[in-house]
Amino acid sequence: MEARALFRAISVLLSIVATFMLACLILGLFIGEGQNALSIFLPPILGGYTLFLLSLIISSRSIVLSQRSGYLFVVLSWLSAAVLGAIPFFLAGFSLSPAAAFFESMSGFTTTGATILTDVEALPRSLLLWRATTHWLGGMGIVVLTVAIFPLLGISGRTPMEAESPGPQVDKFTPRLSHTASILWLIYLVLTLILTVLLLFGGMDWFDAVTHAFATMATGGFSTRNASVGAFDSAYIQIVLTVFMILAGTSFTIHWRVLTGKTRDALRDSEWRVYISIIVVASVLIWIALIHSGISRSIWDHLRHACFQVASIITTTGFATEDYLFWPDFGQTVLFALMFVGGCAGSTAGGIKVGRIVTLFKMAQAEMKYLLNPRGVYGIFVNRRYMKKQIVYDIAAMVYLFLGVSLVSTLVVSSAGYDILTSLTATLATQGNIGPGFSLVGPACNYAFFPDWIKTWLSFMMLVGRLEVYTVLVLLTRAFWKR
Amino acid sequence: MEARALFRAISVLLSIVATFMLACLILGLFIGEGQNALSIFLPPILGGYTLFLLSLIISSRSIVLSQRSGYLFVVLSWLSAAVLGAIPFFLAGFSLSPAAAFFESMSGFTTTGATILTDVEALPRSLLLWRATTHWLGGMGIVVLTVAIFPLLGISGRTPMEAESPGPQVDKFTPRLSHTASILWLIYLVLTLILTVLLLFGGMDWFDAVTHAFATMATGGFSTRNASVGAFDSAYIQIVLTVFMILAGTSFTIHWRVLTGKTRDALRDSEWRVYISIIVVASVLIWIALIHSGISRSIWDHLRHACFQVASIITTTGFATEDYLFWPDFGQTVLFALMFVGGCAGSTAGGIKVGRIVTLFKMAQAEMKYLLNPRGVYGIFVNRRYMKKQIVYDIAAMVYLFLGVSLVSTLVVSSAGYDILTSLTATLATQGNIGPGFSLVGPACNYAFFPDWIKTWLSFMMLVGRLEVYTVLVLLTRAFWKR
Repeated sequence: MEARALFRAISVLLSIVATFMLACLILGLFIGEGQNALSIFLPPILGGYTLFLLSLIISSRSIVLSQRSGYLFVVLSWLSAAVLGAIPFFLAGFSLSPAAAFFESMSGFTTTGATILTDVEALPRSLLLWRATTHWLGGMGIVVLTVAIFPLLGISGRTPMEAESPGPQVDKFTPRLSHTASILWLIYLVLTLILTVLLLFGGMDWFDAVTHAFATMATGGFSTRNASVGAFDSAYIQIVLTVFMILAGTSFTIHWRVLTGKTRDALRDSEWRVYISIIVVASVLIWIALIHSGISRSIWDHLRHACFQVASIITTTGFATEDYLFWPDFGQTVLFALMFVGGCAGSTAGGIKVGRIVTLFKMAQAEMKYLLNPRGVYGIFVNRRYMKKQIVYDIAAMVYLFLGVSLVSTLVVSSAGYDILTSLTATLATQGNIGPGFSLVGPACNYAFFPDWIKTWLSFMMLVGRLEVYTVLVLLTRAFWKR
Repeated sequence: MEARALFRAISVLLSIVATFMLACLILGLFIGEGQNALSIFLPPILGGYTLFLLSLIISSRSIVLSQRSGYLFVVLSWLSAAVLGAIPFFLAGFSLSPAAAFFESMSGFTTTGATILTDVEALPRSLLLWRATTHWLGGMGIVVLTVAIFPLLGISGRTPMEAESPGPQVDKFTPRLSHTASILWLIYLVLTLILTVLLLFGGMDWFDAVTHAFATMATGGFSTRNASVGAFDSAYIQIVLTVFMILAGTSFTIHWRVLTGKTRDALRDSEWRVYISIIVVASVLIWIALIHSGISRSIWDHLRHACFQVASIITTTGFATEDYLFWPDFGQTVLFALMFVGGCAGSTAGGIKVGRIVTLFKMAQAEMKYLLNPRGVYGIFVNRRYMKKQIVYDIAAMVYLFLGVSLVSTLVVSSAGYDILTSLTATLATQGNIGPGFSLVGPACNYAFFPDWIKTWLSFMMLVGRLEVYTVLVLLTRAFWKR
C-alpha cells in the first residue's frame, strides 16, 4: 500500500536526521554541555529512531512510490524533517513558541536563514551546530531533488537544466540515480571541507568555520554571531565567503563538468554567464553608490562590501557584514531587484533562478520577432540547443505562479498590520529562501516580532519557494486527491 | 513611399488634436482669458494646421501602411500628440521645463493622470480643459487601438479579447473598421454625456462636470482641484464617479453587447466577472481595515471611501478623495496589489489587465493538471471557448515583459537617489497609467520634484505601458529596422 511505503520512506529520512542530531549531542557532551544537550536532543533522537523501528515492523519492505506519492514524499520529507528539527529549539529553554521553533527549523532545512532568535550567541554550541546542520542537510537535499529526483517525477521541465545542458542530459549524467546522488554529495562535501579549511586559515575557530561552511554551501545564512559575518571583521573571510557563496549558487552540473575536465563547456553555459554578469553589474552599481555615499572608507573596502552583499542576496544566502538599510537608496534598490533573481537552477540557491529568467527573456524576444513576421518560426535556443515550447510554457507558468503567490502572501502578511515593504520583502525573503529583506525585516532585524500565525505562514512560504511552488501547490488541488 | 504615408497619417492626427485645442481656445476667449489663451494655444494650433497643409502638398494621397509602419504609426501618434499637446503647458508661464510640460501632456494622452503641477487651481480654465481633453482623446484612442487597430496589425493575441468574446469576433464586430470605430466613439460619447449630466445634478458647475467626466471616462485622473475629487466633499459625486470609473474600466465590447440586448452574454464574460469580484473583495478588505483604524466616521462612509479608492486604482484612474497614505497599512497593501492588476482589456484602463491575469491563472492550473498526468491534454478555456496555446504564450510573454520593464525602471528611478517604494510605485503608477503611487508619489504628492531626465524616463514608461509594451519595445529591436 502506498501510504505504508510513504511512511517507510519518511521514517528512513527521519532516522538520518536523528543521526545528525546524535552527532550534535555527542559534540555537546564533549564540550561539557552535558545535561543541557541531553535534554535538548535526546527526545527528538529517540522519537526519530522509534519511528524508524516502527516502520520496520508495520510497513512494506520496498519503497517504490508512484509519481503522485512522489510529490507527497517530497513535501512531507521537508515538513517532517522541519518538525523533528524544531524540537531541540523548542526544548532549549528560550521559551520559544512551537510556531517559532518550527519557523527556525524550516528556515534551516529550506536554507532560508531567516531567524526568530534575538540573541543567537546565547544558544548552546551543540544547538548552534544543529542549526547549521539543518542548512547543510537541506542544501544537499535540494540539489539531489532538482538534479536527480525531479526528472524522475517528470518535472524536469520545471528547471531549465535538462533542456539547457549541452552534452549529456542531466538525468542521464551518470547511469543510475543513486550514483548521481553520490557524486553530488561528494562535490558538496569536498567544497564544504575546502571552505572549512580556508576559514580556519582566516582565523575562525573550528566551530565557527564548520558552521559557516555549512551555512555558505547550503546558501542558508544562519550565522553563529548576532552580527552575522560582520562579527569577524576580516577582509579575508569576507572574500572567501563571497567566492564560495557564488560557487554554491552555481549549478552543480557545472561543478561536475569542471571536475571531469569539461571546463570550456562549463564556462559557456548561458545561465552561468548571465549569473556572473548580473553579479558583476550589480556589484559595480552598488560600488558606485557606496563611493558617493557619506560612508568613509577606501574604495576597495566599498567594492568588497558591495560584492559580498550582492553575492549574499543573489545566491539567497542572506549573510550580512553590515546593515545595508543604511546604504544609499540606489544600493538598496539593486539588492531589492536581486531578490527577484536567485541563483542557478540545480544549485542550493533559491528564488526564481537565473535560467528561468534567461528563458523568459528569450521567449519575449522570440515573440517580438514573431510579431514582425507572423509567418516566421522563432524557436528558443539555450546553449545552442532548441528548447521545446512545452518547457518554455512550463517555466512561464511556474514564474507566474511564484509571483502570484508572492502577491497573495504580501497581502496575508500585511493583514496583520505591516507596511507594504515589510510585507513584500518578508515574503520574498522567505519564499525566495533568502533570509533578510527590507524595512522591519532588514539584515540587522529578525522575524521574532511577527505573531505566531504569520511565522507559520512564512514557514509555509519557505517550503513553497524551496520546492519550486508547483510541488506544494499541486497537493492543494482537487485533482491530486481524486481516486 | 511609406515615410510619406506615415507623415500624412500623423499630420491628419495632429490636425484633429489642433482642432480640439481650438475648442479650448474659443472657450478661453468666451470666458475672458483672451490674451492669455491666445498666447498659450495659438502657436500649437497654427503648428498643427501648418503641418497638415504641408502634408497635403508633399505627401502621398493614400494612407495605406504596412504592418511594420503600423507600429511606427501607433507609437508616433502618441508621441507627436504629446509633443503638440505639451506646448500650451510650456507656454502657460509657469516656468515649466520642456520635460515637465511633455510629462504632463504624455500623462494626459496616456490617461495616466500623474501631474507635475503643484497648484492645478492656478491654471487658466482653458488650459485645464485642454488638460482634461488630452485624457479624453487618449482614452478613445486606446479603445479604438485595442479593439479595432491591433487586430489589423496582427496583434489581436496581445489582448485576450479576440479569444474570449463569445459570439462575434471582436475584429468582425461590425464589418468595417471605420464603422467599428464610430460605434465605439458613440458609446464613449454617450457615457461621457450621461456622466456630465449626473455630475451637474451633484452640484458641480458645467466646467468641473465636463473635465471630470473626461478624466473619468478615460480612466485618466486629472482633476481641476488640488485636492482631486476630495475637494467636492460630496457622497453623491463620489458614488457616481465610482460607478463610472468601473464602467470605463469595463471592456467596450461588453457595453456594445449590453446595447444590442445581449446582456446575459455580457454578464457571463469571465474577465468582467473576475474584475467585479476583485473590486468587491478589495473594497471589503479595505472597508474592514478602515473600520478598525482610528479614523472616526460612519461605517457607510468608510465603505464609500474604500469602494472609490479601489475603483480608482484598479481602473487606473487615480482620483483620490483623501490621502490613502494615512490609511491602515493593510489597506495600503491592498491598493498596492491592485496596481499589478488594471482594468479589462478593450477598456480605457491601463495596467496588465484582468483578462491576462485570468488567462495566466488558468495556464498555471492546466500545468498542474498536466504535471499529475503528463499524458493528458489540458486546454485552456475562457468563456467556454478554447484558447489557442499561441495566444496564451503571447500573453505570458507580454506580462513577463511588463514586469521585467517595471524592475528595470525601478532601478533607473532609484539611481537618481529615491527609495525602493518611491521608485517601484512611481514606475507602476506611470507604466500602469494609474497616476498616484506610494511614499513620495502618494495621492497628495506630485511628480514635480523628479529631475527632468527622470520625468522624461517616466513619460516613456507611460507610453510603454499604454501601448501594451510590445508595440514600443518592438521599435527598439534590430529586426524592426532591418531592410
